[in-house]
Amino acid sequence: MTEIATQPNDVLAAVKFDANGLVPAIAQQHDTGEVLMMAWMNAESLCETLTTGRVCYYSRSRGGLWRKGETSGQTQHLKDLRVDCDGDTLLLLVHQDGVACHTGRRSCFYRAARDGGLVEIAAPEVSPEALYGQKHG
Amino acid sequence: MTEIATQPNDVLAAVKFDANGLVPAIAQQHDTGEVLMMAWMNAESLCETLTTGRVCYYSRSRGGLWRKGETSGQTQHLKDLRVDCDGDTLLLLVHQDGVACHTGRRSCFYRAARDGGLVEIAAPEVSPEALYGQKHG
Repeated sequence: MTEIATQPNDVLAAVKFDANGLVPAIAQQHDTGEVLMMAWMNAESLCETLTTGRVCYYSRSRGGLWRKGETSGQTQHLKDLRVDCDGDTLLLLVHQDGVACHTGRRSCFYRAARDGGLVEIAAPEVSPEALYGQKHG
Repeated sequence: MTEIATQPNDVLAAVKFDANGLVPAIAQQHDTGEVLMMAWMNAESLCETLTTGRVCYYSRSRGGLWRKGETSGQTQHLKDLRVDCDGDTLLLLVHQDGVACHTGRRSCFYRAARDGGLVEIAAPEVSPEALYGQKHG
């Protein structure tokens, strides 16, 4: 699995973190274009992502680094990293092992607006129990 | 141009707006998969987007509704709207008239991490002056 790994200094300098020290990061499957998820990074997780080539977010609920796939095995391998015009959003082009969503679906964006409501347009590919054992999270 | 327009009630109920009443919205060109930009919506702009089929954001800098393309002509036509598993991020599948970025580029994500720095991987397709007249914004 080819991953990019680079020195993070100039990238970090270009990113405008918010008042909480975070920046939103969109993960997109690099070859199919599927948008998989959006999560947050702080400077440390961005630095780790760039230097290791494995995507690491910052978990706002847990208040710490979230190495994607560490528990579930559903790792994201960094293929390219883009910074937007304002420096306040990141686009990660990744190879997603397995599924991105904690529900067992490939993408977190599996509910679509239809006729005033939301309908599920994708089914789980794996059960959350298989990903996380008894603990679902 | 076929746009979706729907009643927003159940969609609004499923969205978890943050402490500022906002939710991040990713815009993706519906047929090519290109991620164009990320901006924010409040309940009013989301409601307007769903009922009109034209994408309307909330401008944090201006503190008001931002009907994409109202000044520049670079309208986004809504093709589909997705809500993520946690209800705290939206994915808009759109048809982008012209360019999404205020710099005149198709996508806002035109800077890529390379060898520790950032390089521009896309050139402007139109000048900001042509989009906005003398005022660039």
